[in-house]
Amino acid sequence: MKKTGNNQFLKQYNETMILDLVRINKIISRAELSNITGLSATATGMTITSLIEKGYIHETGIGESKGGRRPMMLELKSEAYYSLGFDIDVDCINMTLIDSTGKIISNDEFKYNETISFENAVEIIENMIEKAILQFSIKTERLLGMGFAVPGMVSSSTQQVVLAPNLGWHNVNFAAQLKKFKDVPSFVENEAMASAICENWIGSCQGYNDFICINIKSGIGAGIFTGGRLYRGASGSAGEVGHISVDENGPKCGCGSYGCLETMSSTNAILSNAKKLVRQGLPSKLNEYENLEDIGIDEIVKAARLGDKVSLDILMESAGYLGIAISNIVNTLNPSKIVLGKEFVKYGDLVLEHIKDIVRSKALKMPASNVEIVISDIGEQVSTLGAAIKPLKALFGK
Amino acid sequence: MKKTGNNQFLKQYNETMILDLVRINKIISRAELSNITGLSATATGMTITSLIEKGYIHETGIGESKGGRRPMMLELKSEAYYSLGFDIDVDCINMTLIDSTGKIISNDEFKYNETISFENAVEIIENMIEKAILQFSIKTERLLGMGFAVPGMVSSSTQQVVLAPNLGWHNVNFAAQLKKFKDVPSFVENEAMASAICENWIGSCQGYNDFICINIKSGIGAGIFTGGRLYRGASGSAGEVGHISVDENGPKCGCGSYGCLETMSSTNAILSNAKKLVRQGLPSKLNEYENLEDIGIDEIVKAARLGDKVSLDILMESAGYLGIAISNIVNTLNPSKIVLGKEFVKYGDLVLEHIKDIVRSKALKMPASNVEIVISDIGEQVSTLGAAIKPLKALFGK
Repeated sequence: MKKTGNNQFLKQYNETMILDLVRINKIISRAELSNITGLSATATGMTITSLIEKGYIHETGIGESKGGRRPMMLELKSEAYYSLGFDIDVDCINMTLIDSTGKIISNDEFKYNETISFENAVEIIENMIEKAILQFSIKTERLLGMGFAVPGMVSSSTQQVVLAPNLGWHNVNFAAQLKKFKDVPSFVENEAMASAICENWIGSCQGYNDFICINIKSGIGAGIFTGGRLYRGASGSAGEVGHISVDENGPKCGCGSYGCLETMSSTNAILSNAKKLVRQGLPSKLNEYENLEDIGIDEIVKAARLGDKVSLDILMESAGYLGIAISNIVNTLNPSKIVLGKEFVKYGDLVLEHIKDIVRSKALKMPASNVEIVISDIGEQVSTLGAAIKPLKALFGK
Repeated sequence: MKKTGNNQFLKQYNETMILDLVRINKIISRAELSNITGLSATATGMTITSLIEKGYIHETGIGESKGGRRPMMLELKSEAYYSLGFDIDVDCINMTLIDSTGKIISNDEFKYNETISFENAVEIIENMIEKAILQFSIKTERLLGMGFAVPGMVSSSTQQVVLAPNLGWHNVNFAAQLKKFKDVPSFVENEAMASAICENWIGSCQGYNDFICINIKSGIGAGIFTGGRLYRGASGSAGEVGHISVDENGPKCGCGSYGCLETMSSTNAILSNAKKLVRQGLPSKLNEYENLEDIGIDEIVKAARLGDKVSLDILMESAGYLGIAISNIVNTLNPSKIVLGKEFVKYGDLVLEHIKDIVRSKALKMPASNVEIVISDIGEQVSTLGAAIKPLKALFGK
């Protein structure tokens, strides 16, 4: 019995290893897999047969010969296994359906105006899942899992949302509540950490060990990778860079402190700044909006792009404080890359050079010259995708 | 031949594993070692015999019986193998000689007034080594290695000092220059990182995975552990928390920026503050010193302890800025412990509560309530000891 158990474990181990090698290499032959893993041709062949039978990989075309017969190549099979990712924010739930190759199959969104209870969210999510699997005829056994990104602290051991202050959630558990899909594995992740996972898996931080993703939207948070792994901190709250103090005399923050980065550089801060200036009657394109409520980040960015100085100044000022916080982060953590994402992608091109100038002048030369600061290529969907990648990481043993 | 090679490797592996288990358990029996490692009684016995023959461990007294004969216990042999640690600072070289149990055998110090060249330092260090090994009759083959802590950036791969600005050193290599001891393994480490290694090995951070040691002296730097490992950053300069911006309108720092933590809370900052106030003629015990040059950190601390308000205020103000920087670090990294060391231990008891109050009011509740902030028990010797621990870590496979 013990031997069988060990063989089962070994078989699973080999399958995961080879599956991940197919993913990383995108296209690879049996001989190359045997070479890399050190497994015999027979063991490699058996493992591959099992993976093909289960539908994870398939044969695709013929590769180049290295002397003998031209080998049959292998790659991940697309649209065979799926994963669902959800990003739950204060005003909407975003969903994405991807397959095991990381290809996006479908996106969905549910908006709301008032704070949503956990019970309501569960109902909405169950409906979104049902709609997606019906539309794409996905059997639940082909659903690798569901990931949930939330703006709060999660427990990586219990997969619970420990605290999401802006949602008003405290110790809630998706796995226990999504009763219609209780057999589908579920994963929960902080939204900034989910973004970092996404950038590392399919974004601009593939192959990077020490990088930081900073999400700028109504709040500001970061996902930190150290030594190739997501760093959660001692109790799971690492990355709260929105509460780095950037101006001792700045406005009071929701956290009780003063002049936190969030109070100066979040989109909420940008909006309230813009509205204040409009109220003061400063000459600006923003005065064209009769109702202050019609001014959102899109309107400010649009005005700035049309040459409106007030709007551009607002964005620049917010970026300046971001530059101060990033300088602190660069000095403390010496990352090789910092990716700025979420709503920042809407105006990042206008202010990125300003941020880089500040980091060059304020951070130490050595870490400042070793860090790339870039705008996320992925955009606002990054945490939704990161949530969907969580079940993929489990599949590929990562 | 291949088999012999593998056996050699396995033998070495087992010896390192058992040696480290003896270290961790302090005192342990053969049966317990066999149980923990899963090695057979014969293999365990052979490994232990080899370790005893080499002088790393020895038998010591008789333990409690668990049914049969009372077992002979094993422990690390003290004063059998040695390690030397050096801390090279702008005004002195400190040395410590420890044995493989971590016991301090001897300390030495060499002071200088002017910047020291690398060649001079090498000469001084060779003399210090010769003196120590002569005094304690240590054969060089019993010297596990030499560690060097420097205030600068080091390369963990080449064991070079990449840049130590305050020493004026650039790309220097101890291993290549210590010609008299070229057969003794040498290790180089940033001084704050060496301190973190020391706190983790023998200090208050044993068993802690996510902690930060902040050294306060003429400058301020930190050693950061994430997930149980020293975090060096992308290019080895992680932990430069002395250049966290704590006051945008503060004085210019040596790094070119303004209001860095170092300009407000280093002992240099404390001293220049004190001298400024004495010059202004504020009523203070410090006025008793006829020559301003006679006022050092010890004099300020002594005056503060005797109730001198000016001196205490200076220390409190510096601690206040330290509190702001620590709040930023707590929010960003969510460590379980922060250890404040080096010259801070001289006055830490006077200001620690003030720092904790600031962190409680400025950092987020969750990470603030999960962090212990303590004064180092080890004191100023922490980086010298950390340097000496580097060769021990190699011995114990850590």
